[in-house]
Amino acid sequence: MSDTTPEGWAEQGRPPALFRRFAFACYADTRAFLERVAAVQEELGLAPQNISFGTTYVNVTIAAADGALGEPERTLAQRIAAAAEGIAA
Amino acid sequence: MSDTTPEGWAEQGRPPALFRRFAFACYADTRAFLERVAAVQEELGLAPQNISFGTTYVNVTIAAADGALGEPERTLAQRIAAAAEGIAA
Repeated sequence: MSDTTPEGWAEQGRPPALFRRFAFACYADTRAFLERVAAVQEELGLAPQNISFGTTYVNVTIAAADGALGEPERTLAQRIAAAAEGIAA
Repeated sequence: MSDTTPEGWAEQGRPPALFRRFAFACYADTRAFLERVAAVQEELGLAPQNISFGTTYVNVTIAAADGALGEPERTLAQRIAAAAEGIAA
């Protein structure tokens, strides 16, 4: 794992993508987190490759369009992790 | 495939789940659809097992808690499909 992987995220696959699972106590918290993530996306103008969620979890995968994870992707990962603070289980 | 599979959905897996992929022209349309799906969930008090989305697609998987797809799951599928009308690509 490269030393620049944001804390809490795992680097997976080739080309590498950042992956993290967030767990929540209830669906309302999951929705609140998804709303915050949407706001971060709008602000940064960058979206995760995939967001997969059920009632009490959200899996986020961030990949770089050109295959090389860089500062924008790491910033997106850090801002999404920050969005979970206070609501994650 | 059982004859009660809602139109446009595929029955997959054991226990069977309903699966459908929705494609959108842009992220704004994807968000609009996700908002509508959230409203349908609230109204019916029933949530898909998983929603997986990127900027221009949403994959929806509906499974029954007890493993047997029934009327509530089919209604959720039909209401989600209706929510895509007018915005799906």
